[in-house]
Amino acid sequence: MNLQVLLASRPSGPPAEDNFRIVASPVPQPADGQVLVRNHYLSLDPYMRMRMSAMKSYARSVALGEVMVGGTVGEVVASRHPNFRESEFVAGTLGWQLYGVADGTALRKVDPRAAPLSVYLGTLGMPGVTAWMGLLDIAKPQAGETVVVSAAAGAVGSVAGQLARIHGCRTVGTAGGKAKCDYVVNELGFDTCVDYKAGRLREDLQAAAPNGIDVDFENVGGEVLDTVLALMNPFSRIAACGMVSQYSAAEPYALRNIRSVLVNRIRVQGFIVSDRLELWPTALAQLSEWFAEGRLKYRETIAHGLENAPRAFIGMLRGENLGKQLVKLL
Amino acid sequence: MNLQVLLASRPSGPPAEDNFRIVASPVPQPADGQVLVRNHYLSLDPYMRMRMSAMKSYARSVALGEVMVGGTVGEVVASRHPNFRESEFVAGTLGWQLYGVADGTALRKVDPRAAPLSVYLGTLGMPGVTAWMGLLDIAKPQAGETVVVSAAAGAVGSVAGQLARIHGCRTVGTAGGKAKCDYVVNELGFDTCVDYKAGRLREDLQAAAPNGIDVDFENVGGEVLDTVLALMNPFSRIAACGMVSQYSAAEPYALRNIRSVLVNRIRVQGFIVSDRLELWPTALAQLSEWFAEGRLKYRETIAHGLENAPRAFIGMLRGENLGKQLVKLL
Repeated sequence: MNLQVLLASRPSGPPAEDNFRIVASPVPQPADGQVLVRNHYLSLDPYMRMRMSAMKSYARSVALGEVMVGGTVGEVVASRHPNFRESEFVAGTLGWQLYGVADGTALRKVDPRAAPLSVYLGTLGMPGVTAWMGLLDIAKPQAGETVVVSAAAGAVGSVAGQLARIHGCRTVGTAGGKAKCDYVVNELGFDTCVDYKAGRLREDLQAAAPNGIDVDFENVGGEVLDTVLALMNPFSRIAACGMVSQYSAAEPYALRNIRSVLVNRIRVQGFIVSDRLELWPTALAQLSEWFAEGRLKYRETIAHGLENAPRAFIGMLRGENLGKQLVKLL
Repeated sequence: MNLQVLLASRPSGPPAEDNFRIVASPVPQPADGQVLVRNHYLSLDPYMRMRMSAMKSYARSVALGEVMVGGTVGEVVASRHPNFRESEFVAGTLGWQLYGVADGTALRKVDPRAAPLSVYLGTLGMPGVTAWMGLLDIAKPQAGETVVVSAAAGAVGSVAGQLARIHGCRTVGTAGGKAKCDYVVNELGFDTCVDYKAGRLREDLQAAAPNGIDVDFENVGGEVLDTVLALMNPFSRIAACGMVSQYSAAEPYALRNIRSVLVNRIRVQGFIVSDRLELWPTALAQLSEWFAEGRLKYRETIAHGLENAPRAFIGMLRGENLGKQLVKLL
């Protein structure tokens, strides 16, 4: 039998466990051109909160009663697509379930000898490509520039900051709490990290970026973005990747420093990694090389069992995870 | 004798006449390489409000006791630069005064037979090039797209909207009051214009842009920008040219819809026309051609006499002008 997590109701504010429903159903069978996959890991990511809402976003909402959307990595158990064979490993977007079918064209083969399977949902998957795209294709930092990365201990932020270091930038993270900041500096190699929960965001960021901010890789939005805006340099860039502080907010944060965009001729670019599929091969090739060289560290927070996915997701939105949040399904 | 308007004190909030002081002084003499110009027209522009403040902006503040900065067009009365001769006409940035000297390199010859002199401070000057740069170099609208231009009756907005029309866009202006909106539609040829003072900004903009907004040429900021943000389409662009509603505001407007930048992958680019001097010749050549063909209409609001410049400037910041605000000096 298959197990699935469905969207049971739409949250207003932070999601709760009763927004989800777990159901058993028969294992689906692949049609012609499709592949049946036994998922080993499910990725939990902040964007899923937006997909739970009916409000307009960049992708359609998950329907009530539909399987929650999500990235997965797993093993082919039956294939009716010529490019895939049983017992090969693939990454895809099969959702919150143990088994899923997908068109072969929507799956990417992964090599479990090159990296642990779970890494294809993190550094060598969507979060890694997101970091690469936002930093290197959009923000384009130059060596010596100061790059701020919010949610620096998260799956995307941790890669974005390490890429900035590889490119010779002064790299400043923001994260919630001392443990995360220690990780960001001591393990990921950021130059420094500001604990946004410490209550001195403006002063600490100013001290961390004494020459101002040239690039902001924005994952959080709200007060963090507003404070960063006030410290941006002329001709700086903001890659707007996420605003996780806002996804469950009853009222949007009221941004005060937008005038900096004009005064400093800032370029702000919102982006979604799936808009630019043509960049994925280049991004993954570079990320794989740096990963193989040991230059892209990572950590994972792993929940066990599909039934614990809702709780893990809720915790991730509260910032309880360190690094990539996963659910181990097998 | 020369007359000059100096910055006497810095305004907090909207400027008042006592922030300025008018003084008489000897007519300056040009040094080697310099040119002495008798100004015929002084341009009054919103950016001057920022230059009156001590707060960080994109250009240094005018010092207390210094001549107010400003664009001018006038006649050469003495030249010690080989490219200029007496009785030629030049545009420059000689400030709020009857006579000024400048390096020849900082002056641009203008042809009073191709256009009235004052037009070189409007459509064929800084405001025109600003409109061209923001619309065509930054926002790059495609035919059939919807372009919103705020402060559409102003010197920059009126050109930006007409350029959008020339490029086959649906062009929506915003302006304050019925008279300005009538001018924007009936004379400038915008498809429609929203009166932001009518109290139905969101509804009226939505009706004016039924297919959403692809390009925003932003001159106003504040509530207008916030409302536009909520109506922007995926992959839309904002050319952030000015935020005149904010220049004298005690508290910055609290922007609520920044999340749209992420959801719609908006590109926002702040810009200042003087950053890209290399684009001026192309811009001016195109503008001159369209102007000669009668495709760029304009209006001017003209104050008479340097002593009336402060009052005219204060009125312009309140939106009392229609089209380009000038001071006739001769």
